[in-house]
Amino acid sequence: HHRDNVIFGGRGMSLEETINDSNVYYRSQDRAVIYKKPTPIRIVKVDYPKRSKATIKEAYFQQASTTDYNGVYRGYYLDFEAKETTNKASFPLKNFHQHQVDHFKRCLAQQGICFTIMRFSSLERYFVTPASLLIDYWQLQETNRKSIPLKVIETQGYEIQAGFHPALDYLKAVDQLIQHSTQTNSKGGKI
Amino acid sequence: HHRDNVIFGGRGMSLEETINDSNVYYRSQDRAVIYKKPTPIRIVKVDYPKRSKATIKEAYFQQASTTDYNGVYRGYYLDFEAKETTNKASFPLKNFHQHQVDHFKRCLAQQGICFTIMRFSSLERYFVTPASLLIDYWQLQETNRKSIPLKVIETQGYEIQAGFHPALDYLKAVDQLIQHSTQTNSKGGKI
Ligand SMILES: [Mg+2]
Ligand SMILES: [Mg+2]
Repeated sequence: HHRDNVIFGGRGMSLEETINDSNVYYRSQDRAVIYKKPTPIRIVKVDYPKRSKATIKEAYFQQASTTDYNGVYRGYYLDFEAKETTNKASFPLKNFHQHQVDHFKRCLAQQGICFTIMRFSSLERYFVTPASLLIDYWQLQETNRKSIPLKVIETQGYEIQAGFHPALDYLKAVDQLIQHSTQTNSKGGKI
Repeated sequence: HHRDNVIFGGRGMSLEETINDSNVYYRSQDRAVIYKKPTPIRIVKVDYPKRSKATIKEAYFQQASTTDYNGVYRGYYLDFEAKETTNKASFPLKNFHQHQVDHFKRCLAQQGICFTIMRFSSLERYFVTPASLLIDYWQLQETNRKSIPLKVIETQGYEIQAGFHPALDYLKAVDQLIQHSTQTNSKGGKI
Protein backbone atom coordinates (compact mmCIF):
# COMPACT_ATOMS: atom_id res chain seq x y z
CA HIS A 1 0.00 0.00 0.00
CA HIS A 2 1.27 3.41 -0.94
CA ARG A 3 -0.84 5.98 0.82
CA ASP A 4 1.61 8.85 1.20
CA ASN A 5 -0.99 11.37 0.12
CA VAL A 6 -3.53 10.37 2.74
CA ILE A 7 -4.01 13.20 5.17
CA PHE A 8 -6.29 13.36 8.15
CA GLY A 9 -7.19 16.60 9.84
CA GLY A 10 -6.23 15.35 13.27
CA ARG A 11 -2.50 14.92 12.65
CA GLY A 12 -0.60 15.16 15.92
CA MET A 13 -3.72 14.51 17.97
CA SER A 14 -4.38 11.25 19.77
CA LEU A 15 -7.14 9.04 18.41
CA GLU A 16 -9.44 10.07 21.27
CA GLU A 17 -8.76 13.77 20.72
CA THR A 18 -9.47 13.34 17.02
CA ILE A 19 -12.81 11.65 17.75
CA ASN A 20 -13.79 14.13 20.48
CA ASP A 21 -13.00 16.97 18.09
CA SER A 22 -15.14 15.39 15.38
CA ASN A 23 -17.99 14.93 17.87
CA VAL A 24 -17.92 18.64 18.75
CA TYR A 25 -18.13 19.37 15.03
CA TYR A 26 -21.00 16.91 14.49
CA ARG A 27 -22.95 18.49 17.36
CA SER A 28 -22.36 21.99 16.05
CA GLN A 29 -23.73 20.89 12.66
CA ASP A 30 -26.67 18.95 14.17
CA ARG A 31 -25.30 15.82 12.51
CA ALA A 32 -25.17 13.61 15.62
CA VAL A 33 -25.04 13.81 19.41
CA ILE A 34 -22.14 11.63 20.56
CA TYR A 35 -20.03 11.97 23.69
CA LYS A 36 -17.16 10.15 25.31
CA LYS A 37 -18.36 8.74 28.60
CA PRO A 38 -16.55 10.19 31.61
CA THR A 39 -14.17 7.84 33.41
CA PRO A 40 -16.00 6.35 36.37
CA ILE A 41 -14.40 7.40 39.64
CA ARG A 42 -15.09 6.27 43.20
CA ILE A 43 -14.93 9.31 45.43
CA VAL A 44 -13.83 8.72 49.02
CA LYS A 45 -13.11 12.15 50.47
CA VAL A 46 -14.30 15.63 49.51
CA ASP A 47 -13.41 18.97 51.14
CA TYR A 48 -15.98 21.76 51.04
CA PRO A 49 -13.94 24.87 51.77
CA LYS A 50 -15.81 28.10 52.50
CA ARG A 51 -16.21 30.40 49.53
CA SER A 52 -14.49 28.05 47.09
CA LYS A 53 -15.51 24.97 45.29
CA ALA A 54 -15.60 21.40 46.50
CA THR A 55 -12.24 19.63 46.21
CA ILE A 56 -11.96 15.88 45.84
CA LYS A 57 -9.09 14.82 48.11
CA GLU A 58 -9.21 11.05 47.70
CA ALA A 59 -10.66 9.06 44.84
CA TYR A 60 -9.92 5.99 42.74
CA PHE A 61 -10.35 5.03 39.11
CA GLN A 62 -13.05 2.41 38.62
CA GLN A 63 -13.22 -0.25 35.97
CA ALA A 64 -15.54 0.94 33.22
CA SER A 65 -18.41 -1.47 32.57
CA THR A 66 -19.21 -0.28 29.08
CA THR A 67 -17.40 1.28 26.10
CA ASP A 68 -15.84 4.67 25.31
CA TYR A 69 -18.56 6.42 23.34
CA ASN A 70 -22.28 6.44 22.76
CA GLY A 71 -24.95 8.69 21.34
CA VAL A 72 -27.69 9.17 18.79
CA TYR A 73 -27.49 9.57 15.02
CA ARG A 74 -30.44 9.56 12.58
CA GLY A 75 -32.61 7.70 15.07
CA TYR A 76 -29.94 5.07 15.71
CA TYR A 77 -28.19 4.36 18.98
CA LEU A 78 -24.43 4.29 18.36
CA ASP A 79 -21.99 2.63 20.72
CA PHE A 80 -18.29 2.26 20.10
CA GLU A 81 -14.74 1.83 21.32
CA ALA A 82 -11.70 3.62 19.93
CA LYS A 83 -8.54 1.52 19.69
CA GLU A 84 -5.22 1.73 17.91
CA THR A 85 -2.30 -0.52 17.03
CA THR A 86 1.16 -0.08 15.56
CA ASN A 87 0.83 -3.51 13.91
CA LYS A 88 0.62 -3.46 10.15
CA ALA A 89 -1.07 -6.73 9.29
CA SER A 90 -3.61 -7.38 12.03
CA PHE A 91 -5.40 -5.89 15.02
CA PRO A 92 -4.57 -7.64 18.34
CA LEU A 93 -7.52 -8.78 20.45
CA LYS A 94 -5.59 -7.95 23.64
CA ASN A 95 -6.65 -4.34 23.05
CA PHE A 96 -10.14 -5.36 24.16
CA HIS A 97 -11.66 -6.47 27.45
CA GLN A 98 -14.37 -9.00 28.23
CA HIS A 99 -16.71 -6.29 29.62
CA GLN A 100 -16.54 -4.38 26.33
CA VAL A 101 -17.45 -7.48 24.32
CA ASP A 102 -20.32 -8.26 26.74
CA HIS A 103 -21.59 -4.69 26.47
CA PHE A 104 -21.51 -4.87 22.66
CA LYS A 105 -23.53 -8.10 22.75
CA ARG A 106 -26.19 -6.52 24.97
CA CYS A 107 -26.43 -3.42 22.80
CA LEU A 108 -26.63 -5.46 19.59
CA ALA A 109 -29.52 -7.43 21.13
CA GLN A 110 -31.27 -4.05 21.51
CA GLN A 111 -30.55 -3.21 17.85
CA GLY A 112 -27.85 -0.68 18.62
CA ILE A 113 -25.20 0.14 16.00
CA CYS A 114 -22.01 -1.14 17.61
CA PHE A 115 -18.46 -0.91 16.31
CA THR A 116 -14.82 -0.12 16.97
CA ILE A 117 -12.95 2.74 15.40
CA MET A 118 -9.63 1.03 14.70
CA ARG A 119 -6.54 3.02 13.91
CA PHE A 120 -3.55 1.37 12.27
CA SER A 121 -1.14 4.11 13.27
CA SER A 122 1.82 2.88 11.19
CA LEU A 123 -0.35 2.88 8.09
CA GLU A 124 -2.43 5.91 9.08
CA ARG A 125 -5.58 3.97 8.15
CA TYR A 126 -8.82 4.03 10.13
CA PHE A 127 -11.74 1.61 10.02
CA VAL A 128 -15.23 1.39 11.42
CA THR A 129 -15.23 -2.31 12.28
CA PRO A 130 -18.56 -3.94 13.19
CA ALA A 131 -18.77 -5.25 16.77
CA SER A 132 -20.08 -8.53 15.36
CA LEU A 133 -16.66 -9.18 13.74
CA LEU A 134 -14.86 -8.52 17.02
CA ILE A 135 -17.26 -10.84 18.87
CA ASP A 136 -16.65 -13.63 16.33
CA TYR A 137 -12.86 -13.43 16.70
CA TRP A 138 -13.08 -12.91 20.48
CA GLN A 139 -15.06 -16.09 20.98
CA LEU A 140 -12.60 -18.15 18.94
CA GLN A 141 -9.37 -16.72 20.34
CA GLU A 142 -8.56 -19.72 22.56
CA THR A 143 -8.47 -22.08 19.61
CA ASN A 144 -8.03 -19.65 16.72
CA ARG A 145 -5.77 -16.62 16.24
CA LYS A 146 -5.49 -13.75 18.72
CA SER A 147 -5.84 -10.91 16.25
CA ILE A 148 -8.08 -9.84 13.38
CA PRO A 149 -6.24 -9.76 10.03
CA LEU A 150 -6.20 -6.40 8.26
CA LYS A 151 -7.38 -8.25 5.13
CA VAL A 152 -10.55 -9.23 7.01
CA ILE A 153 -11.05 -5.73 8.39
CA GLU A 154 -10.66 -4.32 4.87
CA THR A 155 -13.44 -6.62 3.71
CA GLN A 156 -15.86 -6.55 6.64
CA GLY A 157 -15.14 -3.09 7.98
CA TYR A 158 -15.66 0.35 6.46
CA GLU A 159 -12.59 2.47 5.88
CA ILE A 160 -12.75 6.06 7.05
CA GLN A 161 -11.70 8.39 4.27
CA ALA A 162 -9.19 11.16 4.89
CA GLY A 163 -10.36 14.71 5.34
CA PHE A 164 -9.67 17.89 7.23
CA HIS A 165 -12.93 18.91 8.81
CA PRO A 166 -13.92 17.19 10.96
CA ALA A 167 -10.60 15.62 11.89
CA LEU A 168 -12.03 12.11 11.46
CA ASP A 169 -15.26 12.01 9.49
CA TYR A 170 -16.29 8.56 10.71
CA LEU A 171 -20.05 9.01 10.24
CA LYS A 172 -19.78 8.30 6.50
CA ALA A 173 -18.38 4.87 7.31
CA VAL A 174 -21.10 4.47 9.97
CA ASP A 175 -23.70 5.18 7.27
CA GLN A 176 -22.37 2.17 5.36
CA LEU A 177 -22.46 0.02 8.50
CA ILE A 178 -26.07 1.10 9.20
CA GLN A 179 -27.09 0.34 5.64
CA HIS A 180 -25.52 -3.09 5.84
CA SER A 181 -26.97 -3.81 9.32
CA THR A 182 -30.51 -2.83 8.36
CA GLN A 183 -30.31 -4.98 5.22
CA THR A 184 -29.08 -8.06 6.99
CA ASN A 185 -31.19 -7.85 10.13
CA SER A 186 -33.46 -10.84 10.17
CA LYS A 187 -35.26 -10.18 13.44
CA GLY A 188 -38.01 -8.15 11.86
CA GLY A 189 -37.14 -5.32 14.20
CA LYS A 190 -36.51 -1.73 13.32
CA ILE A 191 -32.99 -2.33 12.08
CA HIS B 1 -56.40 11.52 45.06
CA HIS B 2 -56.44 8.60 47.42
CA ARG B 3 -53.56 6.37 46.53
CA ASP B 4 -52.78 4.75 49.88
CA ASN B 5 -52.41 1.36 48.31
CA VAL B 6 -49.81 2.42 45.79
CA ILE B 7 -46.54 0.72 46.56
CA PHE B 8 -43.27 0.96 44.68
CA GLY B 9 -40.50 -1.55 45.15
CA GLY B 10 -37.93 1.12 45.82
CA ARG B 11 -39.35 2.48 49.07
CA GLY B 12 -36.59 4.07 51.13
CA MET B 13 -34.28 4.37 48.12
CA SER B 14 -33.52 7.66 46.42
CA LEU B 15 -34.97 8.21 42.96
CA GLU B 16 -31.55 7.61 41.40
CA GLU B 17 -30.99 4.40 43.35
CA THR B 18 -34.43 3.20 42.29
CA ILE B 19 -33.66 3.86 38.62
CA ASN B 20 -30.15 2.38 38.80
CA ASP B 21 -31.60 -0.72 40.42
CA SER B 22 -34.20 -1.01 37.67
CA ASN B 23 -31.49 -0.61 35.01
CA VAL B 24 -29.52 -3.51 36.50
CA TYR B 25 -32.70 -5.58 36.34
CA TYR B 26 -33.43 -4.54 32.74
CA ARG B 27 -29.90 -5.49 31.68
CA SER B 28 -30.10 -8.85 33.44
CA GLN B 29 -33.33 -9.57 31.54
CA ASP B 30 -32.00 -8.26 28.20
CA ARG B 31 -34.81 -5.70 28.22
CA ALA B 32 -32.65 -2.58 27.73
CA VAL B 33 -29.08 -1.31 28.16
CA ILE B 34 -29.27 1.93 30.12
CA TYR B 35 -26.65 3.46 32.41
CA LYS B 36 -26.30 6.56 34.52
CA LYS B 37 -23.46 8.62 33.10
CA PRO B 38 -20.55 9.05 35.50
CA THR B 39 -20.12 12.54 36.97
CA PRO B 40 -17.47 14.33 34.92
CA ILE B 41 -14.44 15.13 37.03
CA ARG B 42 -11.36 17.22 36.25
CA ILE B 43 -8.35 15.42 37.67
CA VAL B 44 -5.44 17.61 38.74
CA LYS B 45 -3.15 15.37 40.79
CA VAL B 46 -2.69 11.60 40.88
CA ASP B 47 -0.32 9.56 43.06
CA TYR B 48 0.99 6.29 41.70
CA PRO B 49 2.23 4.47 44.81
CA LYS B 50 4.32 1.33 44.32
CA ARG B 51 2.37 -1.90 44.57
CA SER B 52 -0.98 -0.19 45.11
CA LYS B 53 -3.43 1.50 42.89
CA ALA B 54 -3.41 5.04 41.58
CA THR B 55 -4.91 7.54 44.02
CA ILE B 56 -6.50 10.77 42.87
CA LYS B 57 -5.31 13.44 45.32
CA GLU B 58 -6.85 16.56 43.78
CA ALA B 59 -9.83 16.78 41.49
CA TYR B 60 -12.90 18.94 40.90
CA PHE B 61 -16.48 18.30 39.87
CA GLN B 62 -17.23 19.55 36.39
CA GLN B 63 -20.51 20.84 35.06
CA ALA B 64 -22.22 18.04 33.15
CA SER B 65 -23.04 18.98 29.57
CA THR B 66 -25.73 16.39 29.03
CA THR B 67 -28.35 14.51 31.08
CA ASP B 68 -28.29 11.77 33.73
CA TYR B 69 -29.04 8.64 31.72
CA ASN B 70 -28.86 7.22 28.23
CA GLY B 71 -28.95 3.89 26.49
CA VAL B 72 -30.64 1.67 23.95
CA TYR B 73 -34.04 -0.02 24.04
CA ARG B 74 -35.75 -1.86 21.15
CA GLY B 75 -33.63 0.01 18.62
CA TYR B 76 -34.38 3.40 20.17
CA TYR B 77 -31.90 5.77 21.75
CA LEU B 78 -33.22 6.79 25.17
CA ASP B 79 -32.02 9.90 26.97
CA PHE B 80 -33.43 11.17 30.24
CA GLU B 81 -33.11 13.14 33.44
CA ALA B 82 -34.42 12.03 36.84
CA LYS B 83 -35.92 14.78 38.99
CA GLU B 84 -38.14 15.01 42.03
CA THR B 85 -40.22 17.58 43.86
CA THR B 86 -42.11 17.75 47.15
CA ASN B 87 -44.68 20.05 45.47
CA LYS B 88 -48.12 18.55 45.07
CA ALA B 89 -49.63 20.54 42.24
CA SER B 90 -46.81 21.31 39.80
CA PHE B 91 -43.22 20.54 38.88
CA PRO B 92 -40.85 23.57 39.23
CA LEU B 93 -38.70 24.40 36.21
CA LYS B 94 -35.85 25.46 38.51
CA ASN B 95 -35.03 21.75 38.81
CA PHE B 96 -33.67 21.94 35.27
CA HIS B 97 -30.68 23.62 33.65
CA GLN B 98 -30.24 25.23 30.27
CA HIS B 99 -27.64 22.66 29.18
CA GLN B 100 -30.12 19.83 29.82
CA VAL B 101 -32.78 21.51 27.71
CA ASP B 102 -30.25 22.15 24.93
CA HIS B 103 -29.11 18.54 25.03
CA PHE B 104 -32.71 17.31 24.79
CA LYS B 105 -33.28 19.52 21.74
CA ARG B 106 -30.21 18.11 19.99
CA CYS B 107 -31.18 14.52 20.77
CA LEU B 108 -34.77 15.07 19.62
CA ALA B 109 -33.43 16.43 16.33
CA GLN B 110 -31.67 13.04 15.93
CA GLN B 111 -34.94 11.22 16.69
CA GLY B 112 -33.93 10.15 20.18
CA ILE B 113 -36.60 9.32 22.76
CA CYS B 114 -36.11 12.04 25.37
CA PHE B 115 -37.93 12.49 28.66
CA THR B 116 -37.75 13.21 32.37
CA ILE B 117 -38.65 10.73 35.06
CA MET B 118 -40.49 13.03 37.48
CA ARG B 119 -41.17 11.98 41.02
CA PHE B 120 -43.81 13.79 43.08
CA SER B 121 -42.46 12.54 46.40
CA SER B 122 -45.35 13.80 48.57
CA LEU B 123 -47.82 11.97 46.34
CA GLU B 124 -45.52 9.01 45.58
CA ARG B 125 -46.40 9.36 41.89
CA TYR B 126 -43.94 9.00 39.03
CA PHE B 127 -44.23 10.14 35.43
CA VAL B 128 -42.34 9.73 32.19
CA THR B 129 -42.73 13.28 30.89
CA PRO B 130 -41.76 13.97 27.25
CA ALA B 131 -38.83 16.36 26.82
CA SER B 132 -40.94 18.30 24.31
CA LEU B 133 -43.30 19.36 27.13
CA LEU B 134 -40.39 20.56 29.26
CA ILE B 135 -38.96 22.49 26.31
CA ASP B 136 -42.33 24.19 25.68
CA TYR B 137 -42.65 25.37 29.29
CA TRP B 138 -38.94 26.24 29.54
CA GLN B 139 -39.11 28.58 26.56
CA LEU B 140 -42.13 30.41 27.97
CA GLN B 141 -40.98 30.70 31.57
CA GLU B 142 -40.06 34.38 31.39
CA THR B 143 -43.58 35.40 30.42
CA ASN B 144 -45.54 32.36 31.52
CA ARG B 145 -45.45 30.26 34.70
CA LYS B 146 -42.29 28.74 36.17
CA SER B 147 -43.61 25.24 36.72
CA ILE B 148 -45.49 22.54 34.84
CA PRO B 149 -48.92 21.83 36.37
CA LEU B 150 -49.51 18.25 37.51
CA LYS B 151 -52.76 18.35 35.53
CA VAL B 152 -50.75 18.88 32.35
CA ILE B 153 -48.24 16.16 33.27
CA GLU B 154 -51.12 13.77 33.92
CA THR B 155 -52.41 14.47 30.41
CA GLN B 156 -49.21 14.72 28.39
CA GLY B 157 -46.99 12.41 30.43
CA TYR B 158 -47.19 8.68 31.09
CA GLU B 159 -47.66 7.61 34.69
CA ILE B 160 -45.39 4.85 35.93
CA GLN B 161 -47.44 2.13 37.58
CA ALA B 162 -46.45 0.75 40.97
CA GLY B 163 -44.67 -2.57 41.19
CA PHE B 164 -42.03 -4.44 43.14
CA HIS B 165 -39.62 -5.78 40.58
CA PRO B 166 -37.98 -3.82 39.17
CA ALA B 167 -38.24 -1.03 41.73
CA LEU B 168 -39.49 1.40 39.10
CA ASP B 169 -40.75 -0.26 35.93
CA TYR B 170 -40.52 2.87 33.80
CA LEU B 171 -40.09 1.08 30.43
CA LYS B 172 -43.84 0.43 30.20
CA ALA B 173 -44.43 4.18 30.29
CA VAL B 174 -41.59 4.63 27.78
CA ASP B 175 -43.37 2.18 25.46
CA GLN B 176 -46.35 4.55 25.47
CA LEU B 177 -44.11 7.54 24.79
CA ILE B 178 -42.44 5.70 21.89
CA GLN B 179 -45.78 4.72 20.43
CA HIS B 180 -47.01 8.32 20.64
CA SER B 181 -43.73 9.74 19.25
CA THR B 182 -43.65 7.39 16.28
CA GLN B 183 -47.29 8.19 15.48
CA THR B 184 -46.88 11.94 15.62
CA ASN B 185 -43.48 12.24 13.97
CA SER B 186 -43.97 14.16 10.79
CA LYS B 187 -40.39 14.13 9.52
CA GLY B 188 -40.77 10.90 7.66
CA GLY B 189 -37.85 9.55 9.63
CA LYS B 190 -37.62 6.29 11.45
CA ILE B 191 -39.59 7.51 14.44
MG1 LIG C 1 -10.62 3.16 23.91
MG1 LIG D 1 -31.09 14.25 37.93
